[in-house]
Amino acid sequence: MSTRRRQIYEGKAKILYEGPEPGTLIQYFKDDATAFNAQKKGTINGKGVINNRISEYVFTRLAHIGIPTHFIRRLNMREQLVRQVEIIPLEVIVRNVAAGSLSKRLGIEEGEPLPHTLLEYSYKDDGLGDPFVSEEEIACFNWASHEEMQDMSSMAIRINDFLSGMFAAIGIRLVDFKLEFGRLWDGDYARVILADEISPDGCRLWDLATGEKLDKDRFRRDMGGEEEAYQEVARRLGLLQNDDGGPGEVFDLSAHRGRLRGKTKPKK
Amino acid sequence: MSTRRRQIYEGKAKILYEGPEPGTLIQYFKDDATAFNAQKKGTINGKGVINNRISEYVFTRLAHIGIPTHFIRRLNMREQLVRQVEIIPLEVIVRNVAAGSLSKRLGIEEGEPLPHTLLEYSYKDDGLGDPFVSEEEIACFNWASHEEMQDMSSMAIRINDFLSGMFAAIGIRLVDFKLEFGRLWDGDYARVILADEISPDGCRLWDLATGEKLDKDRFRRDMGGEEEAYQEVARRLGLLQNDDGGPGEVFDLSAHRGRLRGKTKPKK
Repeated sequence: MSTRRRQIYEGKAKILYEGPEPGTLIQYFKDDATAFNAQKKGTINGKGVINNRISEYVFTRLAHIGIPTHFIRRLNMREQLVRQVEIIPLEVIVRNVAAGSLSKRLGIEEGEPLPHTLLEYSYKDDGLGDPFVSEEEIACFNWASHEEMQDMSSMAIRINDFLSGMFAAIGIRLVDFKLEFGRLWDGDYARVILADEISPDGCRLWDLATGEKLDKDRFRRDMGGEEEAYQEVARRLGLLQNDDGGPGEVFDLSAHRGRLRGKTKPKK
Repeated sequence: MSTRRRQIYEGKAKILYEGPEPGTLIQYFKDDATAFNAQKKGTINGKGVINNRISEYVFTRLAHIGIPTHFIRRLNMREQLVRQVEIIPLEVIVRNVAAGSLSKRLGIEEGEPLPHTLLEYSYKDDGLGDPFVSEEEIACFNWASHEEMQDMSSMAIRINDFLSGMFAAIGIRLVDFKLEFGRLWDGDYARVILADEISPDGCRLWDLATGEKLDKDRFRRDMGGEEEAYQEVARRLGLLQNDDGGPGEVFDLSAHRGRLRGKTKPKK
């Protein structure tokens, strides 16, 4: 891409540039990784390339089941063309199994299945550490309208069902994940569509057979093997040649072979 | 009271003893004060006596407007007779003005009026620090039923209206307060009634004219004058003789005279 294009926004893991047409943006995936509200910073080599591919794969399939998304098409290894939206300042977190901040806040052991799927909301504000907020607070401060909350929650539940099936098919348990939505304006009317990305950066993905973590918790918790974990997810989704693949192999896993248990074959 | 009676529960500010009849308890008000999940501990001299009186006053008047409560009658300076209930493990927090944990979590300046009254819930668990929880979590973990949540929230809104008027009449702004509810069982059916206490321990009360804090924040924030603040609230409610009162004065304010601005006269 031209180096002349205008940068619209730089986030922790992505950069947004002005797109080729009005109402479009180019979403560039970095290798930068952060955790604990950017108190921890690092790099996961090749993460941007993998997340771009995984997110393309997921958003394309979500569109097939009728979820409106900002995704238009992947442009190259690290970039995708997306619709410009007004981001709703909430993270929608869908939890199937207790983990992370929920486990800590409510004292529920990690891995404990929840009585039913739980939706949570965080207010997107780095300075405040993306605090957990209630639906009543969202209404009180008008961060999203009642109709938008209904749209987001019903889409989140559908996305959870779809992704749970998709990951189960490749031997992965979808523990929880984060979504962001945006407003696509059409005159005075705004439609809520799925934005941002869906990748191991914002999902907890555990190998169904071994419990091995295949997501950003490897980075957050200094477990190592984060590059291999991201690659493993991409490989199981058929987005990489597998280890005995021939020409066209994009990522060389050989150096890391065996670092992740259960890496070479998806488990049922 | 007899020293033989059985202690049912000791909390941070109160002790519950077995009552004289089945289904009753004696609620004893201590002078102990804690803050920040009991990381800070201290004593506010005479607090138990004042809170017993204020809570009697408030619960009696709430009963007059049709709010069912556990309060039966005050027994003596530090004790009241209450109905035994099964405490619902939630703190219901009613906020009219941003302060305390809400200000900190959402970065809203203390004193900023909220767009509308906000109800919040905390899960009562000292080990977890009474974490903020969403209504969806309350449903998910069955801490209260949907009907109980409706009962509690509608009572909380009515109590807020009543207390806002009551405190406004004596020159006090009701910033926020905490309620606890309990289940009163009648066979298989449980009715939700107001329990615990309503006092400057669980309310933020600011002098309308001066902004002076007349509540436990004086203790939490090492401001001093907490005894006088509690006395001032009781005095404005007509529960103490005022400074020029004659015989029958229960509390001697003279030693602390002038420590609290706006102490001697209620402001409009």
